[in-house]
Amino acid sequence: MDAFEQTVRRYLALLATGTTAEIIDCFAPGATVEDPAGGPVLTGPAELEKLYGSLEGRRRATDLHWLRVGGPSAVFGFTLSAGAHEIDVVEVMTFDTEAKITSMRAFWSPDDVVTHSSPTTAAPER
Amino acid sequence: MDAFEQTVRRYLALLATGTTAEIIDCFAPGATVEDPAGGPVLTGPAELEKLYGSLEGRRRATDLHWLRVGGPSAVFGFTLSAGAHEIDVVEVMTFDTEAKITSMRAFWSPDDVVTHSSPTTAAPER
Repeated sequence: MDAFEQTVRRYLALLATGTTAEIIDCFAPGATVEDPAGGPVLTGPAELEKLYGSLEGRRRATDLHWLRVGGPSAVFGFTLSAGAHEIDVVEVMTFDTEAKITSMRAFWSPDDVVTHSSPTTAAPER
Repeated sequence: MDAFEQTVRRYLALLATGTTAEIIDCFAPGATVEDPAGGPVLTGPAELEKLYGSLEGRRRATDLHWLRVGGPSAVFGFTLSAGAHEIDVVEVMTFDTEAKITSMRAFWSPDDVVTHSSPTTAAPER
């Protein structure tokens, strides 16, 4: 597994179980993030914390479906489950020589989001 | 269908049935092409003609599997059949304001290529 694939897999694992700081540590300083692609370009710790901090306190999981690496870049498809939502996402990433993420663009639209109604008898979520 | 999706669909149709000149006309002047991503960056008519000209005279087909558009960019997966080869490709494109392609990066590796034995040769399969 090459270093870029390792970063993708680490990033997806941390989206599911990591802290906001651990997720942001996958990114190089000055990295740019578009989530969704075509939306505002986020950069810097404060803007990334706002994006990824929204995951904290929610039950989360990620499931990688496919991954292609070419040059210092990757494109991959995965499902992000967060609370009652499941989002089918395709992300395009570029990396620096230390395999830190220098740019991320997440391709998804409302059509790619499924919302599950919460079962009323379930145990309380965190 | 937005203009960027139209360009992708036109490009895929031309990969199957178009001339080299028609394919190249989908690109903006100065567009860059990496095929595969991580390989040499091609630019200018001569370099694009060399790449796409290799398709001429071969029986070709394309089959779009999925497409995501975000901002002036798109990512999509398709199968390109050319002669005895079938390649499962994921491409990332960016576009100018006229929906001409300004960059294309094709993510595929030898693992994504299937070669069919010619139907006229009943030779044993490897």
